[in-house]
Amino acid sequence: MNNNFYHPELLQTPEGVRDIYGKECAMKNIIKDNISRVIRSYGFDNIETPSFEYFDIFNKERGSALPNEMFKFFDRDNNTLVLRPDITPSVARCVAKYYENETMPVRLCYCGNSYVNNYSHQGKLKETTQLGAELINDETSDADAEMIVMTIESLLSCGLTEFQIDVGHVGIFNGLVKEAGLNPVQIKELRDLLISKNVFAASQYLSELSISENLMKLFVELPQSFGSKEYLALARAFLPNEEATKALDRLDNIYSVIETYGYSQYVNIDPGLLSSYTYYTGVIFRAYTFGTGEPVATGGRYDSLLSQFGHDGAAIGFVICIDQLMLAIKRQNIDISKPDPRILVLYGSADRMVALKLVTKLRSDGMRICIIRKSSSKGINDYKEYCMRNNIGLIIDVEDSERTNIINIADNTQAEVLIEEICGKEEEE
Amino acid sequence: MNNNFYHPELLQTPEGVRDIYGKECAMKNIIKDNISRVIRSYGFDNIETPSFEYFDIFNKERGSALPNEMFKFFDRDNNTLVLRPDITPSVARCVAKYYENETMPVRLCYCGNSYVNNYSHQGKLKETTQLGAELINDETSDADAEMIVMTIESLLSCGLTEFQIDVGHVGIFNGLVKEAGLNPVQIKELRDLLISKNVFAASQYLSELSISENLMKLFVELPQSFGSKEYLALARAFLPNEEATKALDRLDNIYSVIETYGYSQYVNIDPGLLSSYTYYTGVIFRAYTFGTGEPVATGGRYDSLLSQFGHDGAAIGFVICIDQLMLAIKRQNIDISKPDPRILVLYGSADRMVALKLVTKLRSDGMRICIIRKSSSKGINDYKEYCMRNNIGLIIDVEDSERTNIINIADNTQAEVLIEEICGKEEEE
Repeated sequence: MNNNFYHPELLQTPEGVRDIYGKECAMKNIIKDNISRVIRSYGFDNIETPSFEYFDIFNKERGSALPNEMFKFFDRDNNTLVLRPDITPSVARCVAKYYENETMPVRLCYCGNSYVNNYSHQGKLKETTQLGAELINDETSDADAEMIVMTIESLLSCGLTEFQIDVGHVGIFNGLVKEAGLNPVQIKELRDLLISKNVFAASQYLSELSISENLMKLFVELPQSFGSKEYLALARAFLPNEEATKALDRLDNIYSVIETYGYSQYVNIDPGLLSSYTYYTGVIFRAYTFGTGEPVATGGRYDSLLSQFGHDGAAIGFVICIDQLMLAIKRQNIDISKPDPRILVLYGSADRMVALKLVTKLRSDGMRICIIRKSSSKGINDYKEYCMRNNIGLIIDVEDSERTNIINIADNTQAEVLIEEICGKEEEE
Repeated sequence: MNNNFYHPELLQTPEGVRDIYGKECAMKNIIKDNISRVIRSYGFDNIETPSFEYFDIFNKERGSALPNEMFKFFDRDNNTLVLRPDITPSVARCVAKYYENETMPVRLCYCGNSYVNNYSHQGKLKETTQLGAELINDETSDADAEMIVMTIESLLSCGLTEFQIDVGHVGIFNGLVKEAGLNPVQIKELRDLLISKNVFAASQYLSELSISENLMKLFVELPQSFGSKEYLALARAFLPNEEATKALDRLDNIYSVIETYGYSQYVNIDPGLLSSYTYYTGVIFRAYTFGTGEPVATGGRYDSLLSQFGHDGAAIGFVICIDQLMLAIKRQNIDISKPDPRILVLYGSADRMVALKLVTKLRSDGMRICIIRKSSSKGINDYKEYCMRNNIGLIIDVEDSERTNIINIADNTQAEVLIEEICGKEEEE
C-alpha cells in the first residue's frame, strides 16, 4: 500500500452529509421513479434550478430557513451566494421569469438536493433530497385537494399504507391573532411557543394580554386540537372573524374533494397545524408515518410568494422528503426492491471475440452483464465467492469458442451450454 | 401586483448557473435515462456522494480543479468545505471506505452535479451535470477498452453518430520527460505549454535544455501528432524507455479489443493527448463532436488515486459531461424527444365526481392528465389557446355527468363521447 499520502481522516464526510450506495441507493432510485411517475401522471413537467442562488432569493419573507442556517459563500464579485435551503422560492422565481404571461395553471415538478446548516448536535441531515411539485395560477380548493391527493398517491406508490396527512390552514391562527389584536412581535413569539407545543408558556404569555375567555381557550387548545371536531365547532362559534371562517370553510371543501377521490381515510383536519415557513398563506399540510418523527412530506399554499418576484398568481406546492421517507420505509420493513439481476461472464483472452459477442447479445436482451477477463491467479471458487459478496446470481464461464459453463450461485448447480444456443446460429450470408 | 417586495434583480441567477425547464429539461432527462441504461447494462451500480466534502478530498494530488477554482465555505467547526469540483475522488473515497476488502472488480456509476468557480468571463458553466462510471480493481487493457466502449455506446444512445474518441496514455509524456531528465517544475511548465498547444514556446523552453535531437522532435511534434501513425513509429524507434514502450503496447492492445467490439471507427489513437488532471496514470481519453469545443466525455486510468485513500487498487473511470452533450445535440439538430402527450380535462363543480373518476381511469392507463375546474370568466377558446401554449394535444371537456366533448387541438375537430365509453360501464354488483 502506498502510504505516502494516505490519512485515515480522508475517509470522513462532513457532519450531516452522507454516501448512499448498494441496496439503499437502489431503493432511493425506485422511490424517486415511483413518485415521479405519479406526479407526471398529473401532467407536471420537470424543472431544474441551480444548487446555489443569490442570498436574497431565500431571505426571510420568502425563506424556509433562518439566515444563520444557510450555507453561504461569495462569488468573485463578492455577492453572497447560498446553497438553496428549499426549492420552492427558486421555482417561484422561474415562474415569474419564464411563465410571466401565463395566467392559467402551470404545473412544475422537481427533484433536487437542498441544504440547511443546522447545528450538528441535532443529528439532522444537512443535505437532503426533495422531490416536489408546484401548481401555479390555480386558486381553487380543487387545486388544494389535488396536491394533497398527489402526496397520498406518492406515498402509496412507495408501499406506505399507514400514514396520515394533517391538513390545516394558516387563516385559523391568523384569525385568532387578529381577533386578539396582537402585534407582529407578539405573533411571532406566540407562534414559536405554539409550534414547540409549549402550552404552559403560551398560556402565561396570553394571560398577560387582556383577551376574551373564548379566544384564550381557542389559543391554548390549539396545539392539542389535533383533528378534534369539538375544536372546529368551537372555532366556528367563537371566532367570528372573516379570515378564520373562510379558512374553516375552505378546509371543509378540501376534505369533501379528497373524499370524492376516495382518500379521506389518510386525511386528518388539524386546525392547530402551524408552520414556521412564513410564505404560506392558505392550506398547509404534513404527512407523518411510523419510523420517523419528521414529516415525510410537507406542503401548502403560498399565494403571495410569486408577487415578490413580480408575478401575481396563486400557488400551492408540496415536497416529499426523500430521506425521511427512506428511513420510514426501512424501519417499517417495506420491501420495494425490484429484481435487478446481474450476470458475471468470465473469459480468457483467446476467447475474447466470442465472449464479447455473447455479452453484447445478452445486454441487448436487457440483461445486466459484468465481465471479467480470467486471471491465472484466481480459481472458479474465487469468482463464486465474488458473486455471493456482490449479489450476482449467475456465472457464464466461457470455456472455449463454442462452450460455456453456466453456474447458478444460489444452488451451486452448473450446466454446459453451447454459445450457439445463447446467441442463436450465425446468420446465413 | 404587490410591489412591496418586488425587485427585478431577484429574477437573476448567479453567473455560470442556470435554470433548465420545458423541452430542454425533458431532453436532459431522456439523455440521462438513455446513458444510465447503457451503463447499468454493463453491471454498474449507482452511488451518491455528498455535494460538498472536506477540502482535502480534492487537494492537488487528487484533484481535477485548482484550489482557487473551488467553491469554499466553512462548517460550524471552521473546517473548510468545498462543493465537489469532480466526483471521481469522492467515489475513490467510497471504495476505500465501503469496499475495502474487495480485491475483485467493483463497478460503480453516478449522476450528479459538480462545481468549478472559474472566471466568469470565460463564459463557462460553474455547475454542470456529470454522469460517470468507475471500474475498480481491474487493471487489464480489457477494462480500459470496456470503459471506452461504454462511452461510445452512451453517446450513440443519445442519437450522436458523428463523434470521435481520442485515446492517449500518460506514459508517453512521462517516458519523454524521464528520458529528458526533467525535474517536476520543468515537467509542469512543459506540460502546461503542450496542453495549450503552444508549440513555439515549448520549443524555446526545450532548446534551453540539452536533450537529444530525436527527443526534441518527439516533444515538439507531440501536440500535433494527433492520430499519426508516423509519430507512433517514431516514438517506438527513438523512445527506448520502458514506460513509454509499455504505454504504446497498451494502446495497441486497447485498440484491438475495441476493434473486437466493432467500434474502432469512433476511436483515434492520439499519443499527444495530455491531461491537466494529475491523478491519471495510464490510458486517457476524450470524446469530441460537432457543436461544442469542449469534450462531451473524458476518462482515464488512475491506479494510484485509491491508495491515497488507503485502498491499493487499479481504477479507471469516465464521465459524460451532460451539459456539453446537450449543447451538441441541440446544435446538431438531433431529435431525441419522446412522445409525451398531455390531456386537459375540464369540469364544473357539479360534475366533479364523474370527472375525477374519469381522470383516475386515464392516469391508471398511463396518460398524463392536467385538470382545470372551469371558471365562469373563461370560454373554451381560452382553454384551447392555453393548450396550444403548453403543448397539450387534447381537451376532454366534461359537459355533464354522462357526456364529454373531446377537442383535438391540432385540427380543431371535436366529438361527443360518453364517459361510459371511456371508463367502461359500472361493474355489476
